[in-house]
Amino acid sequence: MDPDGERRARVALSSLAKPGDPVLGAALRTRTASEVLALVAGADAGGEALLAGQAEDGALSRALPRWRARLGEIPSTARLAAWLESGLRLVIPGDAEWPTQLDDLGEARPLVLWLRGTADLRLSCVNSVAVVGSRAATGYGQHVAMEMAATLAEHGTATISGGAYGIDASAHRGAMAAGGDSVAVLAGGLSFGYPHGNRALFTAVAGQGLLVSECPPDTRPTRPGFLVRNRMIAALSRGTVVVEAALRSGALNSARHARELCRPVMAVPGPVTSEYSAGCHELIRDYGAMLVTCAADVLAHVAPAGHSGGPAGPRSGPATPRDFLDPVSVTVLEEVPVRGGRGPASIAVAAGVDLDTALRCLGELAATGFVEHCDRGWRAKRQS
Amino acid sequence: MDPDGERRARVALSSLAKPGDPVLGAALRTRTASEVLALVAGADAGGEALLAGQAEDGALSRALPRWRARLGEIPSTARLAAWLESGLRLVIPGDAEWPTQLDDLGEARPLVLWLRGTADLRLSCVNSVAVVGSRAATGYGQHVAMEMAATLAEHGTATISGGAYGIDASAHRGAMAAGGDSVAVLAGGLSFGYPHGNRALFTAVAGQGLLVSECPPDTRPTRPGFLVRNRMIAALSRGTVVVEAALRSGALNSARHARELCRPVMAVPGPVTSEYSAGCHELIRDYGAMLVTCAADVLAHVAPAGHSGGPAGPRSGPATPRDFLDPVSVTVLEEVPVRGGRGPASIAVAAGVDLDTALRCLGELAATGFVEHCDRGWRAKRQS
Repeated sequence: MDPDGERRARVALSSLAKPGDPVLGAALRTRTASEVLALVAGADAGGEALLAGQAEDGALSRALPRWRARLGEIPSTARLAAWLESGLRLVIPGDAEWPTQLDDLGEARPLVLWLRGTADLRLSCVNSVAVVGSRAATGYGQHVAMEMAATLAEHGTATISGGAYGIDASAHRGAMAAGGDSVAVLAGGLSFGYPHGNRALFTAVAGQGLLVSECPPDTRPTRPGFLVRNRMIAALSRGTVVVEAALRSGALNSARHARELCRPVMAVPGPVTSEYSAGCHELIRDYGAMLVTCAADVLAHVAPAGHSGGPAGPRSGPATPRDFLDPVSVTVLEEVPVRGGRGPASIAVAAGVDLDTALRCLGELAATGFVEHCDRGWRAKRQS
Repeated sequence: MDPDGERRARVALSSLAKPGDPVLGAALRTRTASEVLALVAGADAGGEALLAGQAEDGALSRALPRWRARLGEIPSTARLAAWLESGLRLVIPGDAEWPTQLDDLGEARPLVLWLRGTADLRLSCVNSVAVVGSRAATGYGQHVAMEMAATLAEHGTATISGGAYGIDASAHRGAMAAGGDSVAVLAGGLSFGYPHGNRALFTAVAGQGLLVSECPPDTRPTRPGFLVRNRMIAALSRGTVVVEAALRSGALNSARHARELCRPVMAVPGPVTSEYSAGCHELIRDYGAMLVTCAADVLAHVAPAGHSGGPAGPRSGPATPRDFLDPVSVTVLEEVPVRGGRGPASIAVAAGVDLDTALRCLGELAATGFVEHCDRGWRAKRQS
């Protein structure tokens, strides 16, 4: 495999398929990007003919014409060079700066990441929390977001958000005001820089943290693109806090992604008379989100499995010895069977912890390589 | 047993012992009030001598001198008659108006209840919710309490509170504004009417609902008296809502009583920047209270076990047939063993419901005579 060719092939594919396309993600499990690109380009007619006959590749076979119609969108080598010369960085899986927790997204894992900024993405995200919320925020919500991000920064925890108006912008500003890392994951390309009204903010974030996007830099954001982007905010962070959200707000979508990834979902309450807190209250009341009132509450929920405090190691590193785990995680781990599998509720009862705690520990234990998710729940992985 | 003598004896004992005195409560399990009063008055020297030798009555034996020192406090027959002529009613266990859910307090059950007002206490409390909170309330909290009580009233649910300034007063006013029953449980006697600044409110409550107290009418409230009173607010109602409470607020004490009685504990969120909501947030975050934003949320948590909606029968009536239970309660009941006992967490998992739901159903099932609490958790009672 040609590493540089692979890099170029991933950029090319990211201009053909939509972000998070699961068909492309599945194809990349068994093929290199160059191989998939060859199929799209029609340079591998034999391979394509073979595909059509294979049931499991039916979806891929059907997707090829759709991607092929966009072959003209592939950025030229000159354009690519111009982007890189303008200060953008390109990161793909396997690179030192690739945040391995994105691998938890499975087939929806981004193909590439474009970065602009001074921070190291992987290191910034090791201890990070997503702070998200409505664009139509109140003064109360903006104040809370800013305070929370600033205090998280003071405790060495980066704030990840979406760079939008309202809560997102306040969260970025709070983190930077306290001298902390802030990571803005944009729905469009980094050169397009949407929303334009936040251009000054983006410049500041790039100077003190990172702008991140999985789209080619000149991509205009689409409406579904915002929702697809949200999975990255949830996956990069150790937990997601919704500060203010009306019912049916897009911020609730980030919370759903976090829940699917077994990361803590937290919500800040507000006046019950404010429609901008109704989504947060719904999350707590009906979806088991944890109520948080301050950064300390947040840190209590995202404390790393192997540590009682202080800076943490990467979430998805090599397995660490059991002795490194906190007592609650050890208790939960002891209830996870090596064979078969066991549901989280059953594990929670056996371990004597509540379901949220069990799910949090299981998420951490999975990230640190002690357990894995299976059809029948969770099972322990044999330690080498 | 002389019913009228028993009534007078209970009044006399309530002027000797402090409200909720467990020694007196225990003594009344095996003796009539007249018999206990005779012991206190020294009119049963043989009985008292016998007591001293019995280990289980040691506490009673030690309490007698304390109560005896207050024999002069017993109201005269003339004073009693004057109270009754002034419009006060006296209710004791066994009376038609006695709210049988108070029996859940066990040895802390009130000896008597003094009432003033037009409503029937037992009927008012069948469908009732306690709405409590800080005296030092904000405009926000007062608004929410008033709206909530008014909407509860519109749905035939009475509001029970403590008649204090702030949230309590707003809750009473909201219920009355909507033409509903309001029950104010005072810490002192009804003629003393503390706090005096709420006298006009008390007059209004008596005209449209009920004032309730377990103390002789001229009793001045004491500081611990407020906390002891709170157990009645929790026990009379189907669930307790804390609208606004600072950390360490007395309103949290009502919530604790409700939890001990397995009644739903609910809290209204507010701005995290308000110290007057900090206690509510703590209840939700750390004590499993349910977040409620409106009366509809409250009604969803206190829906009677045997009904999916509409007016409910008394909580502590005779056992109703299983067919009357809602499906969730039936599922929970099926997981409660007839012999031995089983913990609520285990029952919750087996029934496939969350712990709060299981506890709520178990509380309802206990109140309706299907299950009972025992050393090893819960067990089903044989149905006749």
